[in-house]
Amino acid sequence: MARNIKPRSEDYAQWYLDVIKAGELADHSPVRGCMVIRPEGFAVWEAIQKDLDARFKETGHVNAYFPLLIPQSFLTKEAQHVEGFAMECAIVTHSKLEKSGDGTLRPAGALEEPLIVRPTSETVIGHMYSQWVQSYRDLPVLINQWANVMRWEMRTRLFLRTSEFLWQEGHTAHETAEEAQEETLRMLDVYASFAEESLALPVVKGRKTPFERFPGAEETYTIEGLMQDGKALQCGTSHNLGQNFSRAFDIDYLGRDNKQHLAWTTSWGVSTRLIGALIMAHSDDEGLVLPPKVAPIVLSVIPIFRKDEDKAQVAAAIDALMSQLVGEGEVAAGEKRLSPGGLKTYFFDKSTHQKIVVDWRSVRPGDKQYHWEQRGVPFRIEVGPRDVEKQTFVLKRRVDREKEFLPFAAATPDWLRGILDVAQAELLTRARTFRDGSTRRVKSYDEMKEVLKEEGGFVRCHFKPDRAREQQVKDETKATVRCIPFEQEAGGGKCILSGEDCDEEVIFAQAY
Amino acid sequence: MARNIKPRSEDYAQWYLDVIKAGELADHSPVRGCMVIRPEGFAVWEAIQKDLDARFKETGHVNAYFPLLIPQSFLTKEAQHVEGFAMECAIVTHSKLEKSGDGTLRPAGALEEPLIVRPTSETVIGHMYSQWVQSYRDLPVLINQWANVMRWEMRTRLFLRTSEFLWQEGHTAHETAEEAQEETLRMLDVYASFAEESLALPVVKGRKTPFERFPGAEETYTIEGLMQDGKALQCGTSHNLGQNFSRAFDIDYLGRDNKQHLAWTTSWGVSTRLIGALIMAHSDDEGLVLPPKVAPIVLSVIPIFRKDEDKAQVAAAIDALMSQLVGEGEVAAGEKRLSPGGLKTYFFDKSTHQKIVVDWRSVRPGDKQYHWEQRGVPFRIEVGPRDVEKQTFVLKRRVDREKEFLPFAAATPDWLRGILDVAQAELLTRARTFRDGSTRRVKSYDEMKEVLKEEGGFVRCHFKPDRAREQQVKDETKATVRCIPFEQEAGGGKCILSGEDCDEEVIFAQAY
Repeated sequence: MARNIKPRSEDYAQWYLDVIKAGELADHSPVRGCMVIRPEGFAVWEAIQKDLDARFKETGHVNAYFPLLIPQSFLTKEAQHVEGFAMECAIVTHSKLEKSGDGTLRPAGALEEPLIVRPTSETVIGHMYSQWVQSYRDLPVLINQWANVMRWEMRTRLFLRTSEFLWQEGHTAHETAEEAQEETLRMLDVYASFAEESLALPVVKGRKTPFERFPGAEETYTIEGLMQDGKALQCGTSHNLGQNFSRAFDIDYLGRDNKQHLAWTTSWGVSTRLIGALIMAHSDDEGLVLPPKVAPIVLSVIPIFRKDEDKAQVAAAIDALMSQLVGEGEVAAGEKRLSPGGLKTYFFDKSTHQKIVVDWRSVRPGDKQYHWEQRGVPFRIEVGPRDVEKQTFVLKRRVDREKEFLPFAAATPDWLRGILDVAQAELLTRARTFRDGSTRRVKSYDEMKEVLKEEGGFVRCHFKPDRAREQQVKDETKATVRCIPFEQEAGGGKCILSGEDCDEEVIFAQAY
Repeated sequence: MARNIKPRSEDYAQWYLDVIKAGELADHSPVRGCMVIRPEGFAVWEAIQKDLDARFKETGHVNAYFPLLIPQSFLTKEAQHVEGFAMECAIVTHSKLEKSGDGTLRPAGALEEPLIVRPTSETVIGHMYSQWVQSYRDLPVLINQWANVMRWEMRTRLFLRTSEFLWQEGHTAHETAEEAQEETLRMLDVYASFAEESLALPVVKGRKTPFERFPGAEETYTIEGLMQDGKALQCGTSHNLGQNFSRAFDIDYLGRDNKQHLAWTTSWGVSTRLIGALIMAHSDDEGLVLPPKVAPIVLSVIPIFRKDEDKAQVAAAIDALMSQLVGEGEVAAGEKRLSPGGLKTYFFDKSTHQKIVVDWRSVRPGDKQYHWEQRGVPFRIEVGPRDVEKQTFVLKRRVDREKEFLPFAAATPDWLRGILDVAQAELLTRARTFRDGSTRRVKSYDEMKEVLKEEGGFVRCHFKPDRAREQQVKDETKATVRCIPFEQEAGGGKCILSGEDCDEEVIFAQAY
């Protein structure tokens, strides 16, 4: 197995694809712009889902499921919304395939009204809420949906931008504007905490400029992460929709004052794009680096021996090690089947399905090392005959590729949990140090252009949001306003483009 | 709140819809034949998913995600497959909406090749497997997908038959025919165990007749449940696809003999239809009855008091009861938000998210009783002033609507777990007794017709599978061969239609 990952310094875009390929995270599909999420990548998505879903439920939300297909007329009910999505819809127009004269099949059974594969579900969910909400007693409605959505994309990139993607979309309805605003910010906080605590990804919270808002929103809030190449990635958004969708879909209720009122709604979402964020924030030239909290496999174990007579003692030592780490009872029931090609798999944590893998395949130890490094497994243990003699093992840390020798007795579940927590914390610190070091405050447009050209990163400056000026900056520097950050320690100043007074700084960056 | 559920004896079909409506499990959507799964229904699906997913993983499977849209040409590669699905496809033909002359929107951007919303994914998954599988070392591939699928249905019924539904589809590839057959039967066993242990639904395992096979399968196996009205419901199927899809999609591998071979594949699935099975197998004229293992709420608590001065002591007693049952630390973090309109919600089990609800809404106790009965909550506790005096509470069992008085001290988590287990076991026993009592062995076609007309249920008889004969029976009795059961204690006999010798009995029934 050759080293098959292009170094970041040579070609960052190719490095990204190589990491995905080497880690078997995803693959291109026969449908343009749509990806296949392979088991190694999907396990990361499952870890993300499980973690986020618990956070949603702890903040009082429940899950539901709404139809994939949306009548065309629904999409057009909110003017800005349809403007935003009409150009990238997948449209179902027929209901069957029929044999034509020459024996080939062609679409038949034309539908009376075209149906749109949901690009997002505000419209169809708004329609249902209008039927479910009658009185203030029916509010708030706090519903989340895990689903697939479609938006045709011209230039796609695995995970970051695909025509079909997986996401969750929260949709809530409230009695007052204040409650809706509180919910919008609450969910932004949930996303930010999740990104930092579980993805080890520090994010900047802020609001979007009017130009960058979700089509149909009164206000869009975002969490923005910084990737290793100095480009920003929008990691999640939370929208205060005001009464725009309530008005379009008649979500009204009888209030405490015995009068009819329109409800106030919000929506918020994160997607499989987060896997792209994970890759670009933490991985290195050896491949994927996964934060332990979302790593499907937390530890790989590699037996090292040259002569066959050494195998038995190495195997015995590893078996003993595994009993210490997972206990006899914890060996996976389907172990034999979980072990195609010589992998012996154990559940380290049955509740999260996180695994430990012992690699008994008949390939060279060096290849096995690459194999697990490229999959981002946080820790690797190697055991050879000399280790058995000394009752020690080698521990290799994925996060910094350092190794150390440890006595067999050290390997307990608590020890493993401990070093996983340390690795998680180190990744966050590393990412935060990088992000802080790549954030610059500039006083003029020239200075900003210089910084963006030389270093990239987050550029903070005073700027008065305005569609024409934002377009000008984009055309000239490829940078966009990522957000108007909540943290505004700099006070007021002059807009770097117009010279006007402005109260707030924005963050510019080139973005994915 | 009036009793709003039609009794089963008067109109079984209406009763089914009323149970769904009263329990707020699902709703019709604006897209014909597609349903909305409401939070109360979706929570049951989540419980089903969680349980099944663990069973899949314990038998060595991993999850992945494949594209929603399938190129039309893929569907046509397996001749029987396309025959089976062509007439019920949702077909995407356009990629955007454009303003026409009169300002209305119309589909534009015609696709070169139409795309089919997946009715099932053998074809696109087969295509990917052909790229991933090169050598016997790459086998077996053991992948499952949780997804939505579309098949236009003429006559739809919430959960049981909808145009879009949620399901899981397992797709595996193997080195040998034997392994594929072993996998096919293993997954049928997983389904059967799940149905009995978690859904409290006894099922008959068997194989389908050639006439009833999955389009493209060599052999289809099924688990069949019996509903309270004497009709059968197919609850899950597992298909041995032989080499049919490997041949169509070139899934070949270099074997141990250094020659190219076609892989052997299987597929297996269950869907949201299982929620329909749950309703029809267990519920009663008061509404939904849920087996505790898939009940989102395991216990409701209703305070009973007439005078306001009694409220405080009842509240104190219930608070004390809840500390006993869930402990202080276990009160849901989002309690205030989880309690719109006066519901106080606790997590009984954080790992399953199963809840206990105390109902403090300002509605009559009788309405609260209906409310939780109609949602199938397994147990209800009522506490009034006289109970507080006597330090007792009333426990109402949903499964048989019996009640008993218990001392406060009895209410511990272990006690609750214990009575939930007993209720689960009772539901299974009740369903099994009903099923066994509704299974008849007949010796002639006349006898079968009589039984089907008078009683319904499973009718066992000797019958030689044959397309024409099966069609005849269907036309004359509405019954179909549900399966050729694995259990064949009766030995050989004469086909009740043709009089030919046959080795096996089949089970006929009218079915959903």
